[in-house]
This record gives sequence, structure tokens and C-alpha cells, in this order.
Amino acid sequence: MLERYNEIRQQTENICAPLEPEDFVLQPMEDVSPLKWHLAHTTWFFETFVLKPFHTKYKEYHEAYDFLFNSYYETQGTRTVRSERGYLSRPTVREILEYRAYVDTHMAELLEMKLENNLMDDLLELGLQHEQQHQELMYTDLKYSFGQNPLDIKVVELGENKDEWQKTDWITIPEGLQTIGFEGEGFCFDNELGQHKVYLEEFSIANSLVRNVEWAEFIEDGGYEKPLLWHADALAWLKKENIYAPLYWENNENEGWSTYTLNGRKLLSPDAAVMHISFYEAAAYAEWAGKRLPTEFEWEAAADSLNWGRRWEWTNSAYLPYPRFEKPKGAIGEYNGKFMINQMVLRGASLATAADHSRKTYRNFFPPTARWQFTGLRLAK
Amino acid sequence: MLERYNEIRQQTENICAPLEPEDFVLQPMEDVSPLKWHLAHTTWFFETFVLKPFHTKYKEYHEAYDFLFNSYYETQGTRTVRSERGYLSRPTVREILEYRAYVDTHMAELLEMKLENNLMDDLLELGLQHEQQHQELMYTDLKYSFGQNPLDIKVVELGENKDEWQKTDWITIPEGLQTIGFEGEGFCFDNELGQHKVYLEEFSIANSLVRNVEWAEFIEDGGYEKPLLWHADALAWLKKENIYAPLYWENNENEGWSTYTLNGRKLLSPDAAVMHISFYEAAAYAEWAGKRLPTEFEWEAAADSLNWGRRWEWTNSAYLPYPRFEKPKGAIGEYNGKFMINQMVLRGASLATAADHSRKTYRNFFPPTARWQFTGLRLAK
Amino acid sequence: MLERYNEIRQQTENICAPLEPEDFVLQPMEDVSPLKWHLAHTTWFFETFVLKPFHTKYKEYHEAYDFLFNSYYETQGTRTVRSERGYLSRPTVREILEYRAYVDTHMAELLEMKLENNLMDDLLELGLQHEQQHQELMYTDLKYSFGQNPLDIKVVELGENKDEWQKTDWITIPEGLQTIGFEGEGFCFDNELGQHKVYLEEFSIANSLVRNVEWAEFIEDGGYEKPLLWHADALAWLKKENIYAPLYWENNENEGWSTYTLNGRKLLSPDAAVMHISFYEAAAYAEWAGKRLPTEFEWEAAADSLNWGRRWEWTNSAYLPYPRFEKPKGAIGEYNGKFMINQMVLRGASLATAADHSRKTYRNFFPPTARWQFTGLRLAK
Amino acid sequence: MLERYNEIRQQTENICAPLEPEDFVLQPMEDVSPLKWHLAHTTWFFETFVLKPFHTKYKEYHEAYDFLFNSYYETQGTRTVRSERGYLSRPTVREILEYRAYVDTHMAELLEMKLENNLMDDLLELGLQHEQQHQELMYTDLKYSFGQNPLDIKVVELGENKDEWQKTDWITIPEGLQTIGFEGEGFCFDNELGQHKVYLEEFSIANSLVRNVEWAEFIEDGGYEKPLLWHADALAWLKKENIYAPLYWENNENEGWSTYTLNGRKLLSPDAAVMHISFYEAAAYAEWAGKRLPTEFEWEAAADSLNWGRRWEWTNSAYLPYPRFEKPKGAIGEYNGKFMINQMVLRGASLATAADHSRKTYRNFFPPTARWQFTGLRLAK
Repeated sequence: MLERYNEIRQQTENICAPLEPEDFVLQPMEDVSPLKWHLAHTTWFFETFVLKPFHTKYKEYHEAYDFLFNSYYETQGTRTVRSERGYLSRPTVREILEYRAYVDTHMAELLEMKLENNLMDDLLELGLQHEQQHQELMYTDLKYSFGQNPLDIKVVELGENKDEWQKTDWITIPEGLQTIGFEGEGFCFDNELGQHKVYLEEFSIANSLVRNVEWAEFIEDGGYEKPLLWHADALAWLKKENIYAPLYWENNENEGWSTYTLNGRKLLSPDAAVMHISFYEAAAYAEWAGKRLPTEFEWEAAADSLNWGRRWEWTNSAYLPYPRFEKPKGAIGEYNGKFMINQMVLRGASLATAADHSRKTYRNFFPPTARWQFTGLRLAK
Repeated sequence: MLERYNEIRQQTENICAPLEPEDFVLQPMEDVSPLKWHLAHTTWFFETFVLKPFHTKYKEYHEAYDFLFNSYYETQGTRTVRSERGYLSRPTVREILEYRAYVDTHMAELLEMKLENNLMDDLLELGLQHEQQHQELMYTDLKYSFGQNPLDIKVVELGENKDEWQKTDWITIPEGLQTIGFEGEGFCFDNELGQHKVYLEEFSIANSLVRNVEWAEFIEDGGYEKPLLWHADALAWLKKENIYAPLYWENNENEGWSTYTLNGRKLLSPDAAVMHISFYEAAAYAEWAGKRLPTEFEWEAAADSLNWGRRWEWTNSAYLPYPRFEKPKGAIGEYNGKFMINQMVLRGASLATAADHSRKTYRNFFPPTARWQFTGLRLAK
Repeated sequence: MLERYNEIRQQTENICAPLEPEDFVLQPMEDVSPLKWHLAHTTWFFETFVLKPFHTKYKEYHEAYDFLFNSYYETQGTRTVRSERGYLSRPTVREILEYRAYVDTHMAELLEMKLENNLMDDLLELGLQHEQQHQELMYTDLKYSFGQNPLDIKVVELGENKDEWQKTDWITIPEGLQTIGFEGEGFCFDNELGQHKVYLEEFSIANSLVRNVEWAEFIEDGGYEKPLLWHADALAWLKKENIYAPLYWENNENEGWSTYTLNGRKLLSPDAAVMHISFYEAAAYAEWAGKRLPTEFEWEAAADSLNWGRRWEWTNSAYLPYPRFEKPKGAIGEYNGKFMINQMVLRGASLATAADHSRKTYRNFFPPTARWQFTGLRLAK
Repeated sequence: MLERYNEIRQQTENICAPLEPEDFVLQPMEDVSPLKWHLAHTTWFFETFVLKPFHTKYKEYHEAYDFLFNSYYETQGTRTVRSERGYLSRPTVREILEYRAYVDTHMAELLEMKLENNLMDDLLELGLQHEQQHQELMYTDLKYSFGQNPLDIKVVELGENKDEWQKTDWITIPEGLQTIGFEGEGFCFDNELGQHKVYLEEFSIANSLVRNVEWAEFIEDGGYEKPLLWHADALAWLKKENIYAPLYWENNENEGWSTYTLNGRKLLSPDAAVMHISFYEAAAYAEWAGKRLPTEFEWEAAADSLNWGRRWEWTNSAYLPYPRFEKPKGAIGEYNGKFMINQMVLRGASLATAADHSRKTYRNFFPPTARWQFTGLRLAK
């Protein structure tokens, strides 16, 4: 277990290897957190939910860090306003790495005690899963921050613009009762629990994701200007935010569409799956194509036959509790349940998702306007 | 049919009988439309979707009215910005009543032709249902406008604060497949169509609505200040809007809680069902009570056993399309489908709903912050 | 005195003669007040500052009116939020006219007592001057409200688009000490008091105002798009508000520029003085013309030689206190002094200014963005 | 001259000596710029206005820097939106220091050519004065950024909380003509030029600044809650921003008032001059004290008798052009003139003003809400 702990913790720091200290401070929009904050918050999670309750000799590293690095746990008291995380230059990156080392040392001590405490084991595992979630956020937040900068910053090749074309096949699932949700050994989040039956009518779902070349056709056909393709709220959003293409796309008269990647701006690869689109855009595209988005239940029922894992896929399901959903007691009860409103479910995984951090019952969720995640879409009919 | 047309149209004007001309202009928030606008918009609906296409000799009443009284039909061209409907004093109430009379005269002509055109019949029926929806909105909008005025305006007794206590019984529905959606003769909206099966686990649902006295206990117990009862978005909303009680409630040190009704401010009747709460508040109350809100499917499955009809009841279902939902062709396709995002479903009917304008498959919907409608809640477990 | 009182009060009601009840409720922006509110507020002024202190048997007309019709007098207690004056349909216009009649009756009683009280006489005169100020505001507010309506409403001919060309002469005033401010018999506002010397260098000032034809040249020359002509704050304002011509101007491909007047939309009269421009626009025009705006002191020093009275003229003077300025004691001290920041001085009078409500020492003032007043400009060099 | 250039440039870098790289990125409000930006922008000024026009062999350092480091010169083309300067982590501090070194090397080359070009000499001098202005801004921006951080960061002792009490004497200047504005050898800004006469009535002005202990009395007397002391715009600002004391002041029940300084939070020194107040607060204090703020002309007329130099002193003069003010030709014409609206003049100098960067004719200016500068006040009567 300690080995796994160290590996995951190290992976977080590996992400930071190509960066400069100045890169760790940026917060160009409220949804994005400074990288420095991610490094500290994931550490705070272990300190607060594992070390303080279970390591009897543990001493808090710094009295202000509970205020500075709590994300949204009301149970844990007041905290830095989310939109102001980027106002703090101190503690510096170096100081936060010292904090990480201090907590890691004590985590090692604790794990070597081999306490056999199920609650602790659960919280430790949750902490690791939580850190893996933040690893993906570090990539998306970094990309969004660098995306504001005209200097075309290059730091890492994630394969964001990689070709991967395959012919679109339609998989048909006959009508009937499907089993939805997680059951069995291994980790899952509370929002996946409560395995239950869902009745689905017959449907077909594409084996592959919508590609850049198809999205370019949608643009060329005036898709962003046809009001009847869009939700009413989407039209207001398009106008207010002046949206006419996926995030990071730019059109150059001579060279055509390009997109910013963490390895610099690239001419758009036609066969790469489209990325950085909002739910609103995904739904409008599906309408334009004469198809629809799958529900999260359809997706899960077909998951074993699908090619997935390069983009988080918008579904037409709102993020709502499963029938027997219960919030865990205490602060951990705030992990998922309180976000079950105003968000849409995404299924699958992306190129930046940790290798073992995905499964067919996994429910990711974002508001319908979110574009800075590695989001794409798959059609159904 | 003409009789039914005239009755419903007359009912709209009856609502206006106790009002002064100045009352018809108010728009104290974007969601609220001036009464004058409701009178004209419902008329525009018949002119645009029935008279112009089907009455061959019909002449448009006024060339500017298409711009002034289109609500949200992109297909019909540009229109007054919604938030600026209250900037227009002209046409006056009298002029709009003349417009109504002109359209009514031509509708009578048309109906007397007995054309036997199914599409026309459908649009006529839709126009009547649409007018009934606006009748309820006229009451809620008027109440919201008068609710801003310290003069305690009294215009009509709707029974908003009427006692109606009954013991709460729990109705239990065993697990199994349920049939959801409309099928058969008679009118329904497109969003109810596509009757389909939904698998529900066993659940219990209260026979009666949550009452004012129970809500007062929730307040007294600090319900509005306990962050763990609320969705994350709800907490931000509570703080921004400074919410601490249902809309229209005021607390007087000596007399306790009162509420504004269209018949003036009244001391709160403890046994009346609570009203003017947002989805956020309904969900927090359910959490506080150790219960939950029903889904719209649970509600519909149990509807025949429930006592309903005094409040629109928030469910924990997002407003999403049924499996085989299709937008009708043309402008009417904009009636419902484009609103299927960012809204929650309400079921039942309220004290202001037209008598024949409700059924167990009816899907009402509003954003989770809406409070000016006649909204309440029922618990499930 | 009673005759003068009755004449001025009657004049206010005459302005309303061509209006419909719905017209009295509109408040399309915060700066604009509903006409109903003007009718009541000017009455409240006499009730509060004359009848209550000096008419010993006077009984307050309505206990809520002090809250409803106080404009900004902190000394007088709380009041309706300014931006929400348009949310109130009651009291109705008829009820407000009854309020006016009640107060007028008691004012007649009071004046017939012939009390010989200087303070009362001063407050009575202030009330009449105040009512005349509101008469002009009623026109500008009405015009702004009707200007939002596509129906091209016609209610009164004020000569807004009247030709009045004359050759521009330059009047030169030699350097030296000038006497500024009011002294003598007759009424003036507190902000004009404290006659004092100001040293002015030699300057020249145009005898006439800038005309529409000249402004159209400024537009045609790209004046609104040349950043170097504008103040930095003005550029941000131009962009945010999307300003490209004076308020009410519209350009039609075939017919050219037109402007809305209270007598309907008219093709622009080239020789009429330009109107409905902000200070920012006036200053940019002067820069474009290679001239400058006069200061309020230059204006006053030259006033006897100028042709003025059709437009309020922007000066390049900030609205600040004269050397010995003192706020009067009590609520009346709030009349002018607290507005002496963030505003620019306008001199002269407009076509809507009451005949005896102007003099060369009169200091009008508005923020540099205000356009809905009858504002124009005169150049200096 | 080269020596002076090097000294001033070095002084800018000295300010940065105690900082960490993360400190250079912060922009917690639009008015504040990241320190990194100050370092680059002052360098861009020399590159753009001196090297490019006068050093014939000079090669632009980086093609993107003109976009990144132009502040507000429309003449120089598009630029980073001001509020988004804090979104850029690259170029890093190290890269910007390399840019500085490159420009400094070429400036040394240029100065050694001894070109005898008056325009170049003027622009060089302006560049140095400009750099000194930014040195003070670096302190105020750094303080504001660190003031957001609960970690009580200590970087430098500027004497912000130093005792300096002296008895208040009143200096009386008799009425008469005063000479205002700069004339003679040496540098001044364009806004000081045009020496001219101003007639002043007799006035008295305090020899010393208002102290913390006096401001604390104002607070204790409820000064922030008495509406009659404040301008109307100030009241709205107090409420919106929740202002109840100078910026950085905090009240602790046991220890009383403290203030944040760049050397950490300190108990307030009673005799130190009050600092970090807006014009609105200064004016309200003066009203409370039964006095007034001096005009900028009074200040200048009395300057030789005053004790000044620890705080920028708010005057009651709006920032407007002097009689013969002319914008210089070209981009430099944008230096001052376009800001002559919506700002108030401050006179004197502060503890952070460069030693030779002040004189009695110097006109500093900020909007009436600005508090993050080292602002104080002196009374007049």
C-alpha cells in the first residue's frame, strides 16, 4: 500500500517537472485552481482525513493551511474563497513541496503501523483516488492557463491531437432491463453505489467518438448560428461568451483550424476526436447530425462494446442520485452528493485520466457550459 | 369549440377585472412579464399559428405586434428583449383589448367555417392550453409585482392561505415496471408523449404536502444556516440573494410569520401547504426531515393515490426528454424541447391552475431557484 | 404668491395631459423616474418641508408616502430604492392627483395665513424651483421611455429638431479677473452663492452651438473610432455601451440620419443644435475640431454676449464647491452639496427649461456619461 | 546620464530583491499589476520610445513583447487586456531580467554615442521619471497583493507605521493672485506646464497630516455610519464595498486596531499619519472635523510652508487641464491628457516616492475610490 501511495504521490510531482515557479500561481478563471493549490490541497486531504484522526502523534504542519487548502468542506470550517486562490504567492512551491514531504513521511509512519482499520483504509484509498482526480485537473487547469498566453508554451506531449480514425459502427442494444451501478470488490465513489435496474428501450450507439473533421463540417454549415439546434440557455451563453468553435480552436485564413495543446499550437488533426466542447455544443451537434446524445444508462449498458478512453463523453443525463444513494457520515459526505444539481454526467475517461482511475460505472460530472476539461461526444439514435 | 374558445379567452380577461391600467405594465424581474404582455402574447399566438396560416382572408392587425409579442420563437424572427417587456407603455391596455377583440372576431369566423383540418385543430387546442398556462402566470406575475409594493394591495381571494390539514399517510408502491407518459385521446404536450416503461424500486410517498407549521420548525431549527443540508450551488444562492424564508414571508416580533397573498398580507395559516419555495429549499427541507423528494416517475406511478392540486410539487427529476421525444416541425417545435436543460420537473397542479388544465402525466418545469410560482413539496422515502 | 404656486403646479399637470395611465409607470433605466413618481415627489416636497413644519393643523395625507416619495434625503429616513421606483403601480395616477389636490388645498390655506416667515418663504420658493427642475426631467424621462418603444409615439412638439442656424462668431474676452457666482435679489441655489473672483487668461468662445450637420461630419470622419480623440474612460464606455452616434440617432441607408423626438421620429435637421450627447462625446468632438470646451467660468464671463437657451452646454469644469460654499442646515443641506463629485457642470438652459428657471450663474450638473438630458456643446479656444 | 540611468534601473531591481518568483505574478484586482509586468513594461518604454527611434542598429528583443507590455498606448497598437495581466506566467522573471539586461546594454551603447538630440533626451528623461513612478506602484501593488494573504508576509521596512507627531499649526495665506504650475529648468510632466495665475481667497491650511489617532476617533464617533458626512456616490460605495475603516486596518477585541505593512502586521501607531484612505473618506473626515480639504491651488500656494512628503494628500480639485495644456505629439501625448476626467488630484509625495521624484507643482491623480496608494490628508479652512 505504501508503494502505491508513493507512486501516486510521485506522479503528481512528475506532472510539475517541466514547470517554472511562476506557472504554479495562475488562476485565469474561477473553475481553474493554481497548480500550487492542487499540490497542497491533495496533501491537506491526507493530513485532515487520515493523519489527524488516525496517527495519534501527528502534529499539524501549519495552522493556516487548513484555511488555505480546504476546497469545499463546510464541515472543516472556513476557507479561502475559491475565486481568490490565485491571489496567494505564499506558501511558495518549494514550501508546499516541503509540506508534501512532511505529510508523506508521516503517512509512511502510519502505514507501517499496519493498523487494520477499515475506515482508515477507505479514507486512504479515497485520498489516492482524489489525488488522481486532481492529476487530471492539473493538466486541464495548466492547459487553460497556458491557453491565455500568446507565447505558445510547450511543456508535455499528451497526444491531444493524435490521429486515431476508425470507421463508425453502430452497436444496437435490445430493449430490456439493465443493471446499473457498481457492485463488488475494489474502489468506487459513493455516487456509483446502489446497483439497480433500469429499463431501456432499444437503442444504437456509435462505436467511436465524433472527430474534428466532422465538427469542422458542423461549423462550416453554420451550426453555431442556427438557433433551432440549440437549447434556449445555450443561445444566451453563445452570445454572451461569443462562442463559435471549440475552446482553443483558432482559424487562420491560410492554414485553417489549429488548436492549442500542452505541446504547443498544432494544425488540427482531422481524425482526432473533437475535444473541449461544452454539453451545449455536444447537444447542438447531435441535433444537427439528426442523432442524439446517449443517456448515462445507455452508455453503461453498452460500455463493454465501446471503444472508450480518449475523451470524457457528455451524456444527456443530469447528475442525480441513484435510488439508494446515501451521503457518508461526516465531511466525506460532502464529496459528491452536494453537487447533484445543475450538472450533466460524463462517462468514459480521457487521455489524461490515470490508468487505473476509470471503470464503466464511473460518473464524472460538469456544468453544461464547461469546456476546459478533455470533453468529447459520441452519438446515439 | 367556439364556445370553449370564448370561455377560455374570457377567463383571461376576468383575471384582469379588478386591476387598474397602471398594474398592467410592471416587470419587477426578468421572469415576470407585464400583464399587458400576457394579454397580447396569447392573442399573438392565435394570430400567428392559427389565423395567418388557416384564415385565408385574415389581415395582420398591426405590423409591429409580431416583434412586440413574440415570446421566444426564433422561427418567427426578432422580438423585444425579455427583460425589457416592462419598458413599453404602448400599446395601452385598451388597445390590446381591441387587438384581442379583433383576433377573437376572426377566430369566430374561422371556426364557423368548420374546415376539418387536423393540424389547425391541434394548433387551436395548443393555443387554448397555452392561454391557460398564461392565466396561471398572470396570477404569479401579478403577485410578485404587488409583493414589491408596501401598500398591501388586495385584488382577489385565491385561497392561498387556506387551512387544509390532514394526517400524513405514507403510500407504498412495490418495486416493478411502471408505465410513464401520456397515451390516448385528449390533449397533452409533446413532452408527455412516448409512453414508456420505467423500473422503480419500492418507495413510499406522503399523501399530503409539507405544511407551513413544519416549515416554520425547519427555520427555527436553523435549517437555512446549516450548510450540510444544502446543495453547493444552493449555498451560494442563499448568500447572494439573502434568503432565510419562503418568498413573501415576513417575521414580526409580536405577531410571528405573515405572508403576502393577492388578498393582502395574512398571518400564516399553520396547516396550509407551504408555498413559494425553490427546488433548493425543497431539497434542503427533505434532507433536514431525513427524507427525500420523489422522482417524477415515482410521483406519476403513485398519482392515483395522492391528494394533489394545491401546489406544484418539486421532484428530484431533471427536465429531460422521454425516450422517443421528438420536437414537432416548425415553430411549435420550440414549445418545450429547447428548455430541457437546467430545470427541474414539478408535478401536480396549483390553486391557480385552470380546472381542466392538469393530469397525472403533466410535466411542469422551472429552474431550481424559481420561487414566484405556486410551488410546494411532498416527501418520499 | 399663491397664484405663482398654482401656475407652476398646474404646469406640471399640463405636461401630463396627452398621456395614458400606462405611460406614468415606466422606468427603463435607473436615472429615469416614472412620471407618476415625479408628480408625487414634488408634492411630497411641499408636504414635508413646508406644510408639516409651518401649517400647524396639517395632517399627513398617507403614512406610506414619506417612504415612497422621498428621493434622496437621508435626514428624512428610509425610502424606495431608486432603481425600483418603476416596480410600483399603486398609488395610481388618479390617486396621486388626489394627493396633489389635497396638498394644494392646504398650501392655499397656508399661504392665505400670510405668516411672514422668511424660512418658510425660502422653502416655498425652493419647492417651486424644485418643481420646475422636475418639469424638465419629466420631459427627458418621458422621451427616454418612449425612445425604447418601436411604435414611434407622438405626444408633444417641443421644437427639438427645429432649424436655427446662424453663422458662428467668436467672442474674445481679454485676460483678467472675473466675478463668478450669484449675488443680489431673487432666487438662486446654494451652489451659486459665494460670489468670488476668478482669474481667466484670454479666450475665445463661439456664439453658437455645434449643429447636427457638423456632428454628422465628425461621425463620417470616423470620430467615434479614433481612440486618440477620447478620454481613456470614454473609450471603455464607448465599447461597453456600443455608442456610435448621439442618443436617439438612427441611420437609414436611403434616408440618412433620423432622431426620435417627443413628436415622433424625424429626419435630422442639419442646422439644429446637436442634442443628447455625453460629456465624453462633447470633449471628443472638441478635440476633433481642434478646439476645446469652455470652463464654466469662461462661460459665465462671456454669458451676456452668448446666444444660449436651447441646450444645456457641457463645460470642462468638474462640479465642485465655490470657495465659501456651505450646506444649509437640515435636510435642505442635502439638495446640492452631496453631489459635488464625479459630475461635470453644464451651463445655459434647454428648450424644456421653464421660462424663468435659468440665469447665467445657474450650475447644472450630470455625470460624464449622461445622454438623456437635452445636452449640447459650444466650442472655445 | 548613463550613471543616472543605471542607478534608477538598478533601484527597480533592488525592490525585487527580497521576493520569490511566485510573488511576481499576482494581480488581485485590475488596478494592481504583477511585479513581473512592471519590470517588463518600464523596459518596453525605453525600447519603444528611445531605442527603436534613435538607436539605428537596435533589433527588437521579442516580437510578442510589444503586445504583452504596452500599458495603454493606443498609438502603439493592441495589448493584453489590463485585467488579464495576471494570467501570464511566461515570460518568467528570469526571462524578463534578461530582457532588461538586453535593453540596458543597448541603452548604454546609445548613450555613449552622445547624439545631442533634444527629443531623445526628453524621452530618456521621461522614461526615467516613468520608471520612478512604477517603483512606487511596485510597492503599493505588492502591499495590496500580500495584504490578501493571511500569512502576514514580511519583506521590507518602509516606515509605514512610524511615529512622527507634531503639533498642528495653521498657516494662513492672504487673498490674492497666486502663480500655479511649473516653469524653469529641470523636468516636469506636461500636466504641470502652462504657468498661470489663480485668484485665491484667504485660507488656512494645517502644517501636518491627519493622524491615526484622529481617524480612530472619527470611527469611534460613528463617522462611517453618518450619511450626512458623505457624498451621495460615497454612500453607495461604502455599502457595496462594506467599508468601515482604512484599507488594511483590522480591529481585534483585545489589542485594538492593527494595520498590515510590508514588514508585517503592526499595532497601529497613533501618531503616524493615516494612510490608505479614499478621497471619499478624506472628504467625509474633513466634514466631520468641521473643516475641508484644500484645493490643489491652495496646496501649491502654501507648499513652501508645509511639512510634506510622507503621504500623497487628497485635494478637493478634480484633475483637469491647465489653461494652455497641450498633449505632446505622438504616443507620448497619451501619457497624461486622456486621464483628465473622473479623477481627483493628490499633491505632495509619499514614503515610497523616489527621492528626486517630487516637487511642489507635481500633480498626482487617482479616482475617488482608490485606497491602495499611500494616500492621506491635510485639512484646510
